Amino acid sequence: MLSFESDYTTGCHQKILEALMKTNSVSQTGYGFDEYCISAKDKIRKEIGRENAEIFFLVGGTQTNKLTISALLHNYEGVISAATGHINAHEAGAIEASGHKVLSLPSHNGKLDAGEVRDYLKTFYADETYTHMVFPGMVYISHPTEYGTLYTKKELTDLKAVCDDYNIPLYLDGARLGYALASKQTDVTYETLCQTCHAFYIGGTKVGALCGEALVFPNGNAPKNLFTTIKQNGALLAKGRLLGVQFDTLFTDGLYNELGNNAIEKAERLKKMLDENGYRFFLKTETNQQFVILENEQLKKLRQKVSFSFWEKYDDTHTVVRFATSWSTPDSDLDALEKILKDQN
Amino acid sequence: MLSFESDYTTGCHQKILEALMKTNSVSQTGYGFDEYCISAKDKIRKEIGRENAEIFFLVGGTQTNKLTISALLHNYEGVISAATGHINAHEAGAIEASGHKVLSLPSHNGKLDAGEVRDYLKTFYADETYTHMVFPGMVYISHPTEYGTLYTKKELTDLKAVCDDYNIPLYLDGARLGYALASKQTDVTYETLCQTCHAFYIGGTKVGALCGEALVFPNGNAPKNLFTTIKQNGALLAKGRLLGVQFDTLFTDGLYNELGNNAIEKAERLKKMLDENGYRFFLKTETNQQFVILENEQLKKLRQKVSFSFWEKYDDTHTVVRFATSWSTPDSDLDALEKILKDQN
Amino acid sequence: MLSFESDYTTGCHQKILEALMKTNSVSQTGYGFDEYCISAKDKIRKEIGRENAEIFFLVGGTQTNKLTISALLHNYEGVISAATGHINAHEAGAIEASGHKVLSLPSHNGKLDAGEVRDYLKTFYADETYTHMVFPGMVYISHPTEYGTLYTKKELTDLKAVCDDYNIPLYLDGARLGYALASKQTDVTYETLCQTCHAFYIGGTKVGALCGEALVFPNGNAPKNLFTTIKQNGALLAKGRLLGVQFDTLFTDGLYNELGNNAIEKAERLKKMLDENGYRFFLKTETNQQFVILENEQLKKLRQKVSFSFWEKYDDTHTVVRFATSWSTPDSDLDALEKILKDQN
Amino acid sequence: MLSFESDYTTGCHQKILEALMKTNSVSQTGYGFDEYCISAKDKIRKEIGRENAEIFFLVGGTQTNKLTISALLHNYEGVISAATGHINAHEAGAIEASGHKVLSLPSHNGKLDAGEVRDYLKTFYADETYTHMVFPGMVYISHPTEYGTLYTKKELTDLKAVCDDYNIPLYLDGARLGYALASKQTDVTYETLCQTCHAFYIGGTKVGALCGEALVFPNGNAPKNLFTTIKQNGALLAKGRLLGVQFDTLFTDGLYNELGNNAIEKAERLKKMLDENGYRFFLKTETNQQFVILENEQLKKLRQKVSFSFWEKYDDTHTVVRFATSWSTPDSDLDALEKILKDQN
Repeated sequence: MLSFESDYTTGCHQKILEALMKTNSVSQTGYGFDEYCISAKDKIRKEIGRENAEIFFLVGGTQTNKLTISALLHNYEGVISAATGHINAHEAGAIEASGHKVLSLPSHNGKLDAGEVRDYLKTFYADETYTHMVFPGMVYISHPTEYGTLYTKKELTDLKAVCDDYNIPLYLDGARLGYALASKQTDVTYETLCQTCHAFYIGGTKVGALCGEALVFPNGNAPKNLFTTIKQNGALLAKGRLLGVQFDTLFTDGLYNELGNNAIEKAERLKKMLDENGYRFFLKTETNQQFVILENEQLKKLRQKVSFSFWEKYDDTHTVVRFATSWSTPDSDLDALEKILKDQN
Repeated sequence: MLSFESDYTTGCHQKILEALMKTNSVSQTGYGFDEYCISAKDKIRKEIGRENAEIFFLVGGTQTNKLTISALLHNYEGVISAATGHINAHEAGAIEASGHKVLSLPSHNGKLDAGEVRDYLKTFYADETYTHMVFPGMVYISHPTEYGTLYTKKELTDLKAVCDDYNIPLYLDGARLGYALASKQTDVTYETLCQTCHAFYIGGTKVGALCGEALVFPNGNAPKNLFTTIKQNGALLAKGRLLGVQFDTLFTDGLYNELGNNAIEKAERLKKMLDENGYRFFLKTETNQQFVILENEQLKKLRQKVSFSFWEKYDDTHTVVRFATSWSTPDSDLDALEKILKDQN
Repeated sequence: MLSFESDYTTGCHQKILEALMKTNSVSQTGYGFDEYCISAKDKIRKEIGRENAEIFFLVGGTQTNKLTISALLHNYEGVISAATGHINAHEAGAIEASGHKVLSLPSHNGKLDAGEVRDYLKTFYADETYTHMVFPGMVYISHPTEYGTLYTKKELTDLKAVCDDYNIPLYLDGARLGYALASKQTDVTYETLCQTCHAFYIGGTKVGALCGEALVFPNGNAPKNLFTTIKQNGALLAKGRLLGVQFDTLFTDGLYNELGNNAIEKAERLKKMLDENGYRFFLKTETNQQFVILENEQLKKLRQKVSFSFWEKYDDTHTVVRFATSWSTPDSDLDALEKILKDQN
Repeated sequence: MLSFESDYTTGCHQKILEALMKTNSVSQTGYGFDEYCISAKDKIRKEIGRENAEIFFLVGGTQTNKLTISALLHNYEGVISAATGHINAHEAGAIEASGHKVLSLPSHNGKLDAGEVRDYLKTFYADETYTHMVFPGMVYISHPTEYGTLYTKKELTDLKAVCDDYNIPLYLDGARLGYALASKQTDVTYETLCQTCHAFYIGGTKVGALCGEALVFPNGNAPKNLFTTIKQNGALLAKGRLLGVQFDTLFTDGLYNELGNNAIEKAERLKKMLDENGYRFFLKTETNQQFVILENEQLKKLRQKVSFSFWEKYDDTHTVVRFATSWSTPDSDLDALEKILKDQN
């Protein structure tokens, strides 16, 4: 069936499979010291314009968030996140299992507000009993957020300024970073991330890889012995080449950008199509996820022909649903959807 | 260069790549609910002869050990392991990071002795201060062990009897299980494992997969909500299909057994070859790893033509090294090695 | 200076010191197996009317909360608490350090609402992605709450009913339990607690002891090997007698009730006095803590003659402050305060 | 009955009870900011000759070890200890529960050998796979050890040299430090500890206090925000005065030394008495614990008149037992014991 359910329902880009084929019988050292990992890191360093960047390939997003956050925090510190942040809501308590509190602040369509973060920090240190409380030790954001929204360059710069004033790191979860950077409505680039973030990761799983995320410390500022921490977290692959080959492919000839562009172009057409057919948006975003309010009967009918995600109840007779395009969405899927939407009218 | 370094230096079996190709564009649900995972589990259940077995696909060995052990232990319990056990020596403290002590007992070529485990347990509970100490809460073994050795059916049955007497689970790390089961000198089968182990895992990474281990609770006895524990450990793949497709392939038409057989046949030839050329064994095993004592000058010369693993210093003029065959070792590699060994003489 | 700052500013009741004196040179077994601990537990069992109750003496409140909550939760579970709950706000992340998330719900003058807890649980299990989230594994309340307020018998019964429906324990933090039970406006008794709570603790530190809390599992339902968990938490005293002697004294001839009564009687007089002198209440409670809104200039003046606690900013010109009576507040302190209040008018 | 069972069977020194009496009704700030804590810290700084020392009062030994070790280690590090070390054997896995492995080395009558520690560290870093293993991140010793033995000044200096070479801290558990310093056969002073240890603690519980240990960072080198870590560990007393008053008393007019001296003098007499009556020593130590080998029938008879500790089985017909003197052992106890020993002959 036609699916706009998410960006991780199919396998990976054909070129990745080809690269896996081509390199398959070459003997390589394990644990990420293979030549594909080395090459992939070089290419990423070039792409982001940071020769000294330290890069680690990990398998998934929760794993990356958990080990990065716990490696950067002191035992008495917690991490600030939007209430809707993935680490706060959908990682089964991974951060707390590593010993740290998630300090949740209000979400503005998935985003933190720099002013509110500053107020929180100011209020924290103004409280005479703050030494009895969890210290705010870093700021976590995702870009795009859980709601597909984007920070502007100014917003990231403002968050960075707050973090600097309190000497805490800003960490950016880029599970879908490819879609953020390809957006038509963003002024954020890799350079922006390198200037504002202590660390960020470039998501592979949701942008055309089988698995894999590239954790980047843009200024050569990785925590000491992070390799051992990765091992301790059960996150070290014996065949690190699996991640190396994938990221080497994604960062050859601009493939990662191309995959981002595809999702965005398809999303632009999707938005237009929904508008033209009179659909009511709950949230129209700059990236590959679009949120629409459906009348419940309409939802039932539509679901018979196309799959999408339940997001939340809107009211007794309406529901918010999500349509997602992806790196692999073909034009034909949108043609088919257009026909369905028109027929429904 | 010719390599007998380890069993994870090349990619995966060709059939796995083909299956990834073939299934790549099919849209599937995430998080391990795809049809390949379902099919792979069915095939494994058939192979091991346990219809009720609960099976979870995980990415690597340390990850599997860490989350299984911590899910099975109470907070006041530790895990018994041979001193040389992977969890005790080479997992960077993963078990302790999850809050549990590894209680190490003497290693006999990598193996625990059931009698010694019984003595340990008896002595523990005989000590009047045992409530001030870490309770022995489970027994961890690997099969093959770190030294490539194997437990006999009787030894496993004896360990199981001790565990039953003290009401603690026996857990078997099968990172290289394929090589154990294919050995010419074993009476241990899947049936033996199902009868003696509370849980075990079938290693993929070192037996022909790109990554992946199949954790098996043979009697439908998985800890409650292990799915959520997996997520919390950062061990849940959005594209669970990557593991499903691989294990589905490995357990189709006996491929997993075939891969084990190849390594064993090549190892048998290797042992004969080493014997015939006058090499001195440190440990001649039933599986794919063989340990040889080399004079240091000889080691230097040999290393120029073939790669193998440094194992440990033997004395001031000799070194123990490891030669490993694998699922992918071709006859031609052994031909080449034979020539080198003869030339060295 | 005259102090209404808190209920832990002075030492302990004279009778406790006398008992420490009297028993000092008697030789006793360590680790809580002394005869004073045994006697104290018997007296508490009688007081609460539960012959099978299991009782553990611990040193402080955070310690008691941390080890009880982590002993009762599975790794994939968190604890529901009012946002203002001590474990959520003022224990420096002790619960998270033990691996568990605090799931905060709205506070109603410090209290959880049973209906809202039910809604939370219902919504949680209705979410299709709940296995990716932290399971609500128990409910934490304090009585009195952080705001000195009390649950009614009906409210506790309602909370218990919700917990039963979802098969999770209700745990009650009784750091100031003596003041709750002595209140003139409560229908909650030890019997109520035994009927509704899986576990609760009877606070000593803030009700006349030097240190110490009595953790009670009213139905003999303590987690297995809790003694070892206590040791592991660094919470086991070699000289357990220190806690035994104190609780034995507190539960002899109704001393604990008497101490509670003193604080309540003094609080009643305090409330009347504040009313009569025209003070504006932020929160007038049933226990020993009263919250008053002071104009900032008035606050400054008052502070020169009597100490009390800053609570929170009310608006730009007003502040909320707390006056607390205690087990040791003498009538003379209230006489002195009355004079000050009158003079200020 | 006459007891030589341990040094924590009676209450505390009379002067401590008197000080608790005297200060009982004085109103003081909580959480260790009271004037008794301040005064006690000053006196300890003077006694050890370090004006900048940072001092924290904690409740017990396991608590102190657990929080100090976990605060000093990075996540990828473990702590080196003698196999017989308290943290390795008798703290119920407290260190592992905080996430860290105890790396055990051979015990020489309870002591670590500096040469062996150096060899361990050298071997560790020589192993090519060391990044897959737990880094040795600090050295833990106790003084006296579990066996009542003492390090010499030279041995501590040697351990410090090893630690310095590898840039890791040396931490000394002084649960019975008073008895170590009072020994007739030691050249170790507070000055030695300050010069060689990164941190150490002065034990109160076993040297005349009701509870309490003074954790000392002699060079003002406490980990940042240790106060909050203490709170998080459930180790912060609301009435910190309980510890302040006790240590203030112990360090007034040399009481702590006096208590140490009493135990040592009594132990000297005990040793002589055992010698003269033909008892066979398992270990004759410099401190308050003496280990004797008893024939099992003799043990039974002796036990009817005096209590002592079972230590370990010696052989089928003999047992090792421990006699301990303490800060409170009166001459009359030794007179009584002498009579019993003579009668047994």
